[in-house]
Amino acid sequence: MPYISFETGSLNADVKRELIQKLTEVSVEVTGIPKEFFMVSIKEFPDHNVAVGGRTVAEIKVSQQ
Amino acid sequence: MPYISFETGSLNADVKRELIQKLTEVSVEVTGIPKEFFMVSIKEFPDHNVAVGGRTVAEIKVSQQ
Amino acid sequence: MPYISFETGSLNADVKRELIQKLTEVSVEVTGIPKEFFMVSIKEFPDHNVAVGGRTVAEIKVSQQ
Amino acid sequence: MPYISFETGSLNADVKRELIQKLTEVSVEVTGIPKEFFMVSIKEFPDHNVAVGGRTVAEIKVSQQ
Amino acid sequence: MPYISFETGSLNADVKRELIQKLTEVSVEVTGIPKEFFMVSIKEFPDHNVAVGGRTVAEIKVSQQ
Amino acid sequence: MPYISFETGSLNADVKRELIQKLTEVSVEVTGIPKEFFMVSIKEFPDHNVAVGGRTVAEIKVSQQ
Repeated sequence: MPYISFETGSLNADVKRELIQKLTEVSVEVTGIPKEFFMVSIKEFPDHNVAVGGRTVAEIKVSQQ
Repeated sequence: MPYISFETGSLNADVKRELIQKLTEVSVEVTGIPKEFFMVSIKEFPDHNVAVGGRTVAEIKVSQQ
Repeated sequence: MPYISFETGSLNADVKRELIQKLTEVSVEVTGIPKEFFMVSIKEFPDHNVAVGGRTVAEIKVSQQ
Repeated sequence: MPYISFETGSLNADVKRELIQKLTEVSVEVTGIPKEFFMVSIKEFPDHNVAVGGRTVAEIKVSQQ
Repeated sequence: MPYISFETGSLNADVKRELIQKLTEVSVEVTGIPKEFFMVSIKEFPDHNVAVGGRTVAEIKVSQQ
Repeated sequence: MPYISFETGSLNADVKRELIQKLTEVSVEVTGIPKEFFMVSIKEFPDHNVAVGGRTVAEIKVSQQ
């Protein structure tokens, strides 16, 4: 029973729906495990709650504008 | 120090309180580990963020009405 | 689709089987969500990898002998 | 910084490598977030540690032979 | 690529920023792994969703007033 | 009850003990939450199970030799 947890910033409804479809499809294709056994959970957290190398996603996004 | 994480859709306060009690009690009973060592965390996610077999919980609920 | 993750030290096969049964049953009873929607995962970690208040489970167990 | 956690039974090295590639690629394609920001972690647990509807993956696999 | 997940009640922005800095710094210092490889995610849950020994954080806070 | 989960490659016992101490201390210092409420769990995964930007930690380590 594979469980796919996708932690991210906030995403719109269409992106989430497509992500669930594509993550499930590609996992079925690669593992050969039947589709109905796959669980996917998308977990959205605020940009200032998540960081890489000590810089929050919020800070990274500002620096890329 | 067992840590029980319960990921779900949204639940009302009474259900959450009872779930915390019963999950803790049954875990103590089965493992023999003292109650004060148990941590429980209930994590609620929107129905369209969680899917099984590529169908979101929101879609499954609609199909069951 | 509730997902129950149970993080713990090592447990024997009988305890794990009973834990899966009882956690599922009590969750069905409290939430009213059908049994087939429940996923349970027992995750075993070494006692010296887990700590409470800065003391590892290994140290706590020694202090209780 | 999306973090993809893939919990499963044991997989061989080739399947894991392909899974990491395809999960990353499809997530980049759907979200538009640059590839270098994606972290993927494959977590393998024994079949008798994971259950759906109260039946372990080990029991499900036996029933499908 | 160490991933630090910090589950807690709600925290203010300054505390979160300092927590991300200090968790990253101390982890770099202890492990010797370069700073840019560290991901930190702070996950805030309501006090009545988290419990120890069957008592929610909300109940514990009330009992300490 | 803050829960700190530290996912990483394999670490030796001394590093794990120091990590548990320092993560707990710095979290107490920043949040003001009493030490005994903190749980820390170090989760070690094989280098070829974890990837950033589609490259496994094993591949990254080889490329840095």
